[in-house]
Amino acid sequence: MRPSGRQPDQLREVSFVRDFTMHAEGSVLVTFGNTKVLCTASVEDGVPRFLKGKGQGWITAEYGMLPRATHTRSGREAARGKQGGRTLEIQRLIGRSLRAAVDLKKLGENTIYLDCDVLQADGGTRTAAISGACVALVDAFTRLLERKRIKEDPLNGLIASVSVGLYKGEPVLDLDYDEDSNADTDMNVVMTQHGGFVEIQGTAEGDEPFTRQQSDTLLGLAEKGIAEIVQKQQAVLGW
Amino acid sequence: MRPSGRQPDQLREVSFVRDFTMHAEGSVLVTFGNTKVLCTASVEDGVPRFLKGKGQGWITAEYGMLPRATHTRSGREAARGKQGGRTLEIQRLIGRSLRAAVDLKKLGENTIYLDCDVLQADGGTRTAAISGACVALVDAFTRLLERKRIKEDPLNGLIASVSVGLYKGEPVLDLDYDEDSNADTDMNVVMTQHGGFVEIQGTAEGDEPFTRQQSDTLLGLAEKGIAEIVQKQQAVLGW
Amino acid sequence: MRPSGRQPDQLREVSFVRDFTMHAEGSVLVTFGNTKVLCTASVEDGVPRFLKGKGQGWITAEYGMLPRATHTRSGREAARGKQGGRTLEIQRLIGRSLRAAVDLKKLGENTIYLDCDVLQADGGTRTAAISGACVALVDAFTRLLERKRIKEDPLNGLIASVSVGLYKGEPVLDLDYDEDSNADTDMNVVMTQHGGFVEIQGTAEGDEPFTRQQSDTLLGLAEKGIAEIVQKQQAVLGW
Amino acid sequence: MRPSGRQPDQLREVSFVRDFTMHAEGSVLVTFGNTKVLCTASVEDGVPRFLKGKGQGWITAEYGMLPRATHTRSGREAARGKQGGRTLEIQRLIGRSLRAAVDLKKLGENTIYLDCDVLQADGGTRTAAISGACVALVDAFTRLLERKRIKEDPLNGLIASVSVGLYKGEPVLDLDYDEDSNADTDMNVVMTQHGGFVEIQGTAEGDEPFTRQQSDTLLGLAEKGIAEIVQKQQAVLGW
Amino acid sequence: MRPSGRQPDQLREVSFVRDFTMHAEGSVLVTFGNTKVLCTASVEDGVPRFLKGKGQGWITAEYGMLPRATHTRSGREAARGKQGGRTLEIQRLIGRSLRAAVDLKKLGENTIYLDCDVLQADGGTRTAAISGACVALVDAFTRLLERKRIKEDPLNGLIASVSVGLYKGEPVLDLDYDEDSNADTDMNVVMTQHGGFVEIQGTAEGDEPFTRQQSDTLLGLAEKGIAEIVQKQQAVLGW
Amino acid sequence: MRPSGRQPDQLREVSFVRDFTMHAEGSVLVTFGNTKVLCTASVEDGVPRFLKGKGQGWITAEYGMLPRATHTRSGREAARGKQGGRTLEIQRLIGRSLRAAVDLKKLGENTIYLDCDVLQADGGTRTAAISGACVALVDAFTRLLERKRIKEDPLNGLIASVSVGLYKGEPVLDLDYDEDSNADTDMNVVMTQHGGFVEIQGTAEGDEPFTRQQSDTLLGLAEKGIAEIVQKQQAVLGW
Repeated sequence: MRPSGRQPDQLREVSFVRDFTMHAEGSVLVTFGNTKVLCTASVEDGVPRFLKGKGQGWITAEYGMLPRATHTRSGREAARGKQGGRTLEIQRLIGRSLRAAVDLKKLGENTIYLDCDVLQADGGTRTAAISGACVALVDAFTRLLERKRIKEDPLNGLIASVSVGLYKGEPVLDLDYDEDSNADTDMNVVMTQHGGFVEIQGTAEGDEPFTRQQSDTLLGLAEKGIAEIVQKQQAVLGW
Repeated sequence: MRPSGRQPDQLREVSFVRDFTMHAEGSVLVTFGNTKVLCTASVEDGVPRFLKGKGQGWITAEYGMLPRATHTRSGREAARGKQGGRTLEIQRLIGRSLRAAVDLKKLGENTIYLDCDVLQADGGTRTAAISGACVALVDAFTRLLERKRIKEDPLNGLIASVSVGLYKGEPVLDLDYDEDSNADTDMNVVMTQHGGFVEIQGTAEGDEPFTRQQSDTLLGLAEKGIAEIVQKQQAVLGW
Repeated sequence: MRPSGRQPDQLREVSFVRDFTMHAEGSVLVTFGNTKVLCTASVEDGVPRFLKGKGQGWITAEYGMLPRATHTRSGREAARGKQGGRTLEIQRLIGRSLRAAVDLKKLGENTIYLDCDVLQADGGTRTAAISGACVALVDAFTRLLERKRIKEDPLNGLIASVSVGLYKGEPVLDLDYDEDSNADTDMNVVMTQHGGFVEIQGTAEGDEPFTRQQSDTLLGLAEKGIAEIVQKQQAVLGW
Repeated sequence: MRPSGRQPDQLREVSFVRDFTMHAEGSVLVTFGNTKVLCTASVEDGVPRFLKGKGQGWITAEYGMLPRATHTRSGREAARGKQGGRTLEIQRLIGRSLRAAVDLKKLGENTIYLDCDVLQADGGTRTAAISGACVALVDAFTRLLERKRIKEDPLNGLIASVSVGLYKGEPVLDLDYDEDSNADTDMNVVMTQHGGFVEIQGTAEGDEPFTRQQSDTLLGLAEKGIAEIVQKQQAVLGW
Repeated sequence: MRPSGRQPDQLREVSFVRDFTMHAEGSVLVTFGNTKVLCTASVEDGVPRFLKGKGQGWITAEYGMLPRATHTRSGREAARGKQGGRTLEIQRLIGRSLRAAVDLKKLGENTIYLDCDVLQADGGTRTAAISGACVALVDAFTRLLERKRIKEDPLNGLIASVSVGLYKGEPVLDLDYDEDSNADTDMNVVMTQHGGFVEIQGTAEGDEPFTRQQSDTLLGLAEKGIAEIVQKQQAVLGW
Repeated sequence: MRPSGRQPDQLREVSFVRDFTMHAEGSVLVTFGNTKVLCTASVEDGVPRFLKGKGQGWITAEYGMLPRATHTRSGREAARGKQGGRTLEIQRLIGRSLRAAVDLKKLGENTIYLDCDVLQADGGTRTAAISGACVALVDAFTRLLERKRIKEDPLNGLIASVSVGLYKGEPVLDLDYDEDSNADTDMNVVMTQHGGFVEIQGTAEGDEPFTRQQSDTLLGLAEKGIAEIVQKQQAVLGW
């Protein structure tokens, strides 16, 4: 039934390539099928003004798409002079999700920028970005520990994310672009490796609302998918 | 337990004042306790470029806060030269939610701007805005019908929204600012008058994720609250 | 002769509602007929850079119109990414006018933001804004005195403003939108409660210039109107 | 008494150099003492959208200061990414004033841009700009007539402008920077060559308001000065 | 002598990976040592306004660096709201260089966007971008021919680019970051496959100017390097 | 052969008027035929952040064109809200070129802004700007020495610039607009008074690349022209 021939509860091929680029403290190319996102974690001394002197660090995220990551070229946001609402919404979600993974006190007065740039898009770029940024963050923490810039690992645990939705009335896991653009309901879910929910964003795309029962089924599907993604994260980290 | 003394499943006082200002086709002051939002619906001929010639209309929303709607003054977005990420995220939510209430075909090639401006903020501005904008939209449709600019009522049904959350571990309905700024989990829910879910946005605010069971309890609380808000909408509309 | 049936030297109904919103140190809804402006006075520690260390305070103003305050919707300045020339011109006028009401030395190193947001427009928004902002300013001074953040009242005296103009060749007081959009000459006048002129801005709107005699007649009319507005300010302040 | 040694009712040396640059339809360097403004009139086919199809033309103005036209360098507005409030206010004044000089119907569907760029500032840049732009406009009309792009001269008559003010309590004409920065009251006046008032903008600069009598005296002084400037305009135009 | 141990006239390892991403008509990852740039060619119907109706096409380029392509993170241009001068300068150079490779008449009324995004920077990003964009352009032309959107191949010939410079007084080819940041003179050269010069940009970086003889030597070095890069381009294209 | 009747190796009339405006530390009107650029040098205390505490100064440049400096009016960059790519490219070139003329250590922690504003354009505005800015810079250094703000003259030597190009296949010196807009190759060259090259920027404008031999011939022509311009600089400086 799915355009890709996948089972309803089957993820696309998920992979993480660490140290994809050489300068960043963490640099991960994450792949969810044909969706490819480069996630880097960059450490900077100091914290934003609103946190000065509070003895804690900060995690923030920025998201972008290369102009031709998509089927048709979309205008470059730098050239248009502002980031669109979708971009801001996604980067707020990424930052919020990853902050939930971290004990900011243990980070000290350091800021970590998570840059998630989509090289190729085929649906699910935000969930791939969150899942990949988490691996880049782990690598950055490792380097901060090695360089003795922090004393304790600030990581509370891994975070991963996946989309679920109703496609032709059926609950499916990890929607690709073909499914996403035709879904009745689309839900992005972020969870911890311990099975806690960090974020749920469900939207009835058409004028067909969804039921509480459907919502619950979708959450179950997300739990399954995220558990598998966390296993992949653990594997690539050698845990 | 709640700072306001309310029961866990008790809404704040909710009211809708229609025709609050005189120029707009729909103009509603919505009050959720101390949160006051002016929602206007403005009809314009024509549709955005991407819909030209498709024989349907469009609903879009803009959201703003007066600089001193809040405890401390926040900079005027017009003066800073851009709308912040939070603003864009909220106005995208409002627009998406209200489009779910409307048969855009029946609207013809007209665009309705829903302007939601917060005069006074005390938590829940986006849920108040959605609930108020729906009443303004109904009034605008009535005027379009009276003026024979449309033939059929495009409304599929009422839409309302409320926040729910975990405050000191307890599920509560319709959080005010004191609760919201200390909540463990905050969830905004949008539903149709017929009990369908249009949007669920749940966030673990601290580093304490929530469970699937808690999510389900919160949705139940939201269902109760939204049903009451829909009754208020119906009452003020004389239905 | 006037569309509203008023006498040439008759003001619209003028009212001031204090504490219209709850967070600001001063919050006044001013009404000149159908023109309604919410004026808040917000106190912040410190002064702009150019005044640092000079032992004085600062008063500044910002002006905005809700998109549907007007007959037809005007684009939101925050969304367009800049304030228009008219907006900047008006907020500069408001700030300059109110500074004339204040002994900035007595204010200490505090800044007061006067936010004037038009909820409903029917001509004369800037004159209503100045008149209302003055009442909000008085309330803010009272609170600063109560909280012992300042020792002496910085107010030199009340300030009020009204428009006058030539409508169908006749001098009239306090033009509404119907008159304003058809006036030959439009003049905005700001005065102190003691009868001194703070600002005169007179413009021949069409290609019909005005005479020195007409200018003098208009100033006389403004003196009368402003005296009445000052009485309203005093009444609402309980002076 | 005046820093420059001038009589209270004495203008600075006023001159107009026509065809100061070679590309514009009108190009005038206007000098009021040490204030030097280059005013060009540029003709373009067509009118702004709001005038399309109304069979009339449009006059608009833009104003700028070279960064080091002033005592200390001010940041380049193009580099800061926006025009300041003062700039917008002045260019609105210039445009409005010059439109009063023109029968826009006779201009046909053409737009004239009046660019007023201050090469050197010593007070009174806006009044010099208005007076110089009028001469540039006359030259542009002459060229449009020569090229048969218009049939009738659209000029209603010359427009000129001067500042007056209270300096150390005395009414003086055409304030230079030393006077302007210390004036109690500053008034910019725009008049037609026939003695009609187009614009009056009077401001009490300090906390010392001015009287109706003083306003009247200042207007008399302005009438005298503007009459002299009009004579200079006529002389340089060979009228 | 060179930090990398290369001979003075030795290129870094140069490679081109075609079809690096899947949506663009041409998509090439170009590598000059550790410098990696993703170059995509996107075809759109139509031409910019200034070319409408002239029966020719257009080639334009945009350049960007991912925030952590560099040693230390640089702010995202989309977030800062504008492209910097260096970015604009480089993208103008890329566009101009590639237009020299193309017969725009044969392209018909189509526009090709060349997006060059630096994934990892180690000096020479603009020369790599030009060399890679040319291969992406060839692929795009091939697809346009296959799809019969154009009849003749618009390519005049290949274009490639390399940097040369004086490092510790010695002429060297293809500077990496270590050399570039210490070079006395830096020169970027763009040439056709037939040995013609398209662009020469030479700069004395310190206060040590260079001689005409040195300039000539550098051009000779560039000729050699570009010939080798063209061979690589031909090899990857299977010519 | 040249539209102007000049010999191939003949400059336009070149002149420098010092102290053209009165406020700047250096103010020079430079004329290359009909191209007229006002160059001011403004001294400010302090240096940009990246140089703080390094005991050296900084030279930076800004470039602008008055809207009607050109044949047809171009939009004012301040009104459009950003500087175009061409503007940024030119001002970066001017700044870089003039820094090559200066020992920044001897300048101390001062910044000099070189503002180059084109009053009238007829080709070669950037080369005139560089040549004129150098004279303004010398005057500013003289004033800094007189005022004892610096102890030693920071000038390494004069800098001048000229364009050369291939017009109808022939090498010509100092192209005017008619030539420039039809040139096959255009090259801007910046040199020191001692004959060293500071910058070479050569571009094949059409699809006709140039040869190494042609490049060399053009550099020879530039050497001749720049030597003559340096003589003019020396003459006007009384050296």
